[in-house]
Amino acid sequence: MLTNLEHLGLAVHDLAAATALYTTLLGTPPYKQEHVASEAVDTVFFRVGGSKIELLAGTSPESAITKFLARKPEGIHHVAFEVDDIRAEMARLKEEGFVLLNEEPKPGADNKLVCFVHPKSAVGVLVELCQTIDSADGD
Amino acid sequence: MLTNLEHLGLAVHDLAAATALYTTLLGTPPYKQEHVASEAVDTVFFRVGGSKIELLAGTSPESAITKFLARKPEGIHHVAFEVDDIRAEMARLKEEGFVLLNEEPKPGADNKLVCFVHPKSAVGVLVELCQTIDSADGD
Repeated sequence: MLTNLEHLGLAVHDLAAATALYTTLLGTPPYKQEHVASEAVDTVFFRVGGSKIELLAGTSPESAITKFLARKPEGIHHVAFEVDDIRAEMARLKEEGFVLLNEEPKPGADNKLVCFVHPKSAVGVLVELCQTIDSADGD
Repeated sequence: MLTNLEHLGLAVHDLAAATALYTTLLGTPPYKQEHVASEAVDTVFFRVGGSKIELLAGTSPESAITKFLARKPEGIHHVAFEVDDIRAEMARLKEEGFVLLNEEPKPGADNKLVCFVHPKSAVGVLVELCQTIDSADGD
């Protein structure tokens, strides 16, 4: 099962402006900035209770975020849920007919292994499963 | 400040089908169904860690959800954050230049007082502030 709403990922054009705005809105500054070279994104993370808000800006035309923003306005890009065993959850959801966008877990931001579920499988929501690498099987 | 990512609200056409799908996806059944007459919506709630997923279907052409789905595909409608003092947060955000969609807190689903912040104020995200009525000032 999915154990926590780990973070909401928001696609933005101007990371500095969005960071300033969300610092004011949430009433708390970000705790981390991270460049994820494999996804060609710059990210900024805020904590809100037991969840996080992740702002994402693409750093190349090939970035999924850049492509998303070429088609759609700024806003929510994905919803990430924590799982204890990402491979077990991927197998369970595949068996149930959900379409996974990667066949193997891949490294994501914030020290996670991640897998995306196609939005058509989840009423229009791009769902990310994520497992903290420290609790994974060491890869 | 905003203390918790209280829930994600998803606008759906077929509440029964979406409920079945999210029961499978999340690996847990809903804990509540509620009709909110003032908003003309039927809602179904799931718990995920310290947050909730709220499925929303409109029950009249005047419902904000029905209007949303006439313009957009199914998916995320709003993101709700818990606050300790909704009136204080509304005043703080208004002072900071955020556009509030209601001037006074109004009753929402799940025993809350709520206020919406215009998506143009929050990088395309319709933000809901919510305070549990039990901890409010009794109205």
